[in-house]
Amino acid sequence: MNYKLIGNILGKVLLAEGGLLVLPLIAALCFGESVLPFVIPMVPLFVIGAVLARIKPASENLFAREGFVCVGLSWILLSVIGALPFVISGDIPSYLNALFETVSGFTTTGASILENPEILSRGCMFWRLFTHWIGGMGVLVFIAAILPVSGAHYIHIMRAEVPGPTVSKIMPRVRQTARILYLIYLALTLMECVFLLFGGMSFYDAILHSFATAGTGGFSTQAASIAGFGSVYIEMVISVFMFLFGCNFNLFYLIIIGQGLQALKSEEFRIYTGIVIGSVILIAANIASTAGSFLTGLRYSVFQVTSIMSTTGFSTCDFDKWPEFSRWILVLLMFIGGSAGSTAGGLKVSRIIIMIKSYMAELKRLVLPSRVVTVRLEQKPVEIEKMRGIHVFFATYMAIAAICVLILSLNGTDMLTNITASIACISNVGPGLSGVGPTCSYFLFSPLSKITLIAEMLLGRLEIFPLLLLFSPSIWKRK
Amino acid sequence: MNYKLIGNILGKVLLAEGGLLVLPLIAALCFGESVLPFVIPMVPLFVIGAVLARIKPASENLFAREGFVCVGLSWILLSVIGALPFVISGDIPSYLNALFETVSGFTTTGASILENPEILSRGCMFWRLFTHWIGGMGVLVFIAAILPVSGAHYIHIMRAEVPGPTVSKIMPRVRQTARILYLIYLALTLMECVFLLFGGMSFYDAILHSFATAGTGGFSTQAASIAGFGSVYIEMVISVFMFLFGCNFNLFYLIIIGQGLQALKSEEFRIYTGIVIGSVILIAANIASTAGSFLTGLRYSVFQVTSIMSTTGFSTCDFDKWPEFSRWILVLLMFIGGSAGSTAGGLKVSRIIIMIKSYMAELKRLVLPSRVVTVRLEQKPVEIEKMRGIHVFFATYMAIAAICVLILSLNGTDMLTNITASIACISNVGPGLSGVGPTCSYFLFSPLSKITLIAEMLLGRLEIFPLLLLFSPSIWKRK
Repeated sequence: MNYKLIGNILGKVLLAEGGLLVLPLIAALCFGESVLPFVIPMVPLFVIGAVLARIKPASENLFAREGFVCVGLSWILLSVIGALPFVISGDIPSYLNALFETVSGFTTTGASILENPEILSRGCMFWRLFTHWIGGMGVLVFIAAILPVSGAHYIHIMRAEVPGPTVSKIMPRVRQTARILYLIYLALTLMECVFLLFGGMSFYDAILHSFATAGTGGFSTQAASIAGFGSVYIEMVISVFMFLFGCNFNLFYLIIIGQGLQALKSEEFRIYTGIVIGSVILIAANIASTAGSFLTGLRYSVFQVTSIMSTTGFSTCDFDKWPEFSRWILVLLMFIGGSAGSTAGGLKVSRIIIMIKSYMAELKRLVLPSRVVTVRLEQKPVEIEKMRGIHVFFATYMAIAAICVLILSLNGTDMLTNITASIACISNVGPGLSGVGPTCSYFLFSPLSKITLIAEMLLGRLEIFPLLLLFSPSIWKRK
Repeated sequence: MNYKLIGNILGKVLLAEGGLLVLPLIAALCFGESVLPFVIPMVPLFVIGAVLARIKPASENLFAREGFVCVGLSWILLSVIGALPFVISGDIPSYLNALFETVSGFTTTGASILENPEILSRGCMFWRLFTHWIGGMGVLVFIAAILPVSGAHYIHIMRAEVPGPTVSKIMPRVRQTARILYLIYLALTLMECVFLLFGGMSFYDAILHSFATAGTGGFSTQAASIAGFGSVYIEMVISVFMFLFGCNFNLFYLIIIGQGLQALKSEEFRIYTGIVIGSVILIAANIASTAGSFLTGLRYSVFQVTSIMSTTGFSTCDFDKWPEFSRWILVLLMFIGGSAGSTAGGLKVSRIIIMIKSYMAELKRLVLPSRVVTVRLEQKPVEIEKMRGIHVFFATYMAIAAICVLILSLNGTDMLTNITASIACISNVGPGLSGVGPTCSYFLFSPLSKITLIAEMLLGRLEIFPLLLLFSPSIWKRK
């Protein structure tokens, strides 16, 4: 294990977090609030960060295991320190609650312990929604984009941090890839902000909700979430952007370099779009009678499907009151999640496609055992190791969700609350059903349950292995 | 596809069913009831059966795909005709309900549409519980045990019918293996019957409940299930036998040939026992306060855990009223199910072991990518194809259960009812929670829901592929 290199990278992560705290600090200044909640955490961040970042690693060699360790430790550190502003400001006095809110922010889950988020100071609210934006694309990708990093092996870190089973380098160099990803991310965020300003949102609300959409997070400045704005235009703008942020960012790159047609041909994009459209129609038809008309049903359905499928978690109505058919579709969408290479959570559409295809392949093999069957995604054969990895990932995902439900069930909350809280956290969605429905909060869970859900959110965002490997003794054994 | 051989085997299946109907016919005679419900179906069974069984196949060659087709078609035929006695007797006037009850019987699920089973005539009640015994070990295994079958390739049929990822031939010849399995099955059934007679049960109740335990079915002659007998002795006898019938039958063979120690060393047996003991203790502690004392809690817990883990589904109390923690353990046990090579349903313990080990292997590979990691079960390496098959099986199992919940949710029943009904049917358990709890029945579901659950029970019993292959066009294409 290359400890020096890991230390060096962790130093950069701390420096980056210190730097990012400047934005909520400016927000606090603008609104005449105390800047201490942001200045105080900056001191250790810059001091320890600078010390660690000065470590000169003997070798720049970094393998998959170092990549996982870097990402796992970075995300824990980020969250542990990122929770401080909420505690220092007194907005969230309990450290555990503040940590829950911060992890929920960074992992772009959007599950909140705040029953009324409007009590937050403006600076802390800015930080709360900004964490979505930071976590969406990833801090280590951010560092690769702005700081000099040893290129050749940094891809292992990107693989561990970017969601999805495949990470394709857009450009031959990691740094270029990271920069392009962040530029696309920034451009789309600003574009959404402009559209929201047109809808009459204040700049503060517009930029914060753009952050929360971009990271597919789901925190809102309002207790009523997007319903609080009462505007069809705003709902549709956010719907479109939630859909876009659930797409693989490679597609946007293809569009930029003039290969838009190829982007539309993407198998994952087509299936992702198909699932969204199919779910929208089914739910709209199912809720039409209760919503008043098919059109009103469609309005709620479009918003909620794009919100849940992209694992954002914004809401414009209390979908927990929908009929069971629609509610179950939402639960399934929570599991599926967005596309690989997006900021969304869940299992990811490409994994679902590969699992369906490996089922078809298995049937073919049973009919003709001698036949060689290859599973392809986007016309490219999927290697056996990758298929195995996806299947193990799925089984582990389900097992973690199931075990967490068991821990949650010690709370006395009802089973549907426990099941959907567990799914909503591991899939980084945020709201679930029943006791964690869109009008409820995670405030009432016991400390043990909150720790469980914090672990689930991190496991979901980092796609399990980077975090679980930290607890595997074998990884610490060797040089 | 060797159609002639398939026809020949299907003929034998029909003859066997006709022969098996003699037992409930005798029961009807003994109780002075009409024998017509059993005589009428015998006519087509013997006529069509004899015609088909006379087909001389040009070749005795039978491959995996023919094995699947044979098993899939046999089970559908068996159920379609097996439902007739209930309709003819007028005990269950609706054919769909009768089919549901029959499929639930053969697949050893034990989900009932009868709100009060005591209204059944004695002959039909005998048939209802006897179907558990027939389905438990399998009809095609039964045929192999009693009729001359072409040995060499019949193993493909046994593989398709016997639960679990691995079917080891106890003896070099299929016929010997099938005979030994059925002898063990018969001996254990009779042993249970004797124990129950000692507990003061009538011979009729004792033999029928032995059938239902042996097949890990769960139908009872009483609406209150085993609670109706109000005897701790009877509960403990049935608990022990439910546990035994959830074990791999190879273990009993090892004991018979004097290698009992080796049987105890079986990895699957140890994990199976461990899960049972662990769950019993956790639940007993959890329900102690509501049950009155830890001992009373233990009594209910021992019975319910062995019942659900072996996917039998008998009950001695309304476990739907237990705390969420205990209820969720039961849901998890429904998924896990019994051992491979037993009469139990569910995913099977050996599959769970292999999935956990492949997760550990994946972690090892991430730490040291160059290392070759082999997954072993019972000290033997598990081939890559088998591992892949297990993972695909798990994903398909979950997908089927999830899609069925969607169809059930059109009923207007609550989500917990839909989820647990789907799990209880695909895992061949029987009772679930909420609307399908141990005191409820499946009567109120819509016809579409009943058809869905019938499909799920068959898919669960035959472990998905034999049934799904019937609907795959490619299997019918070639000679």
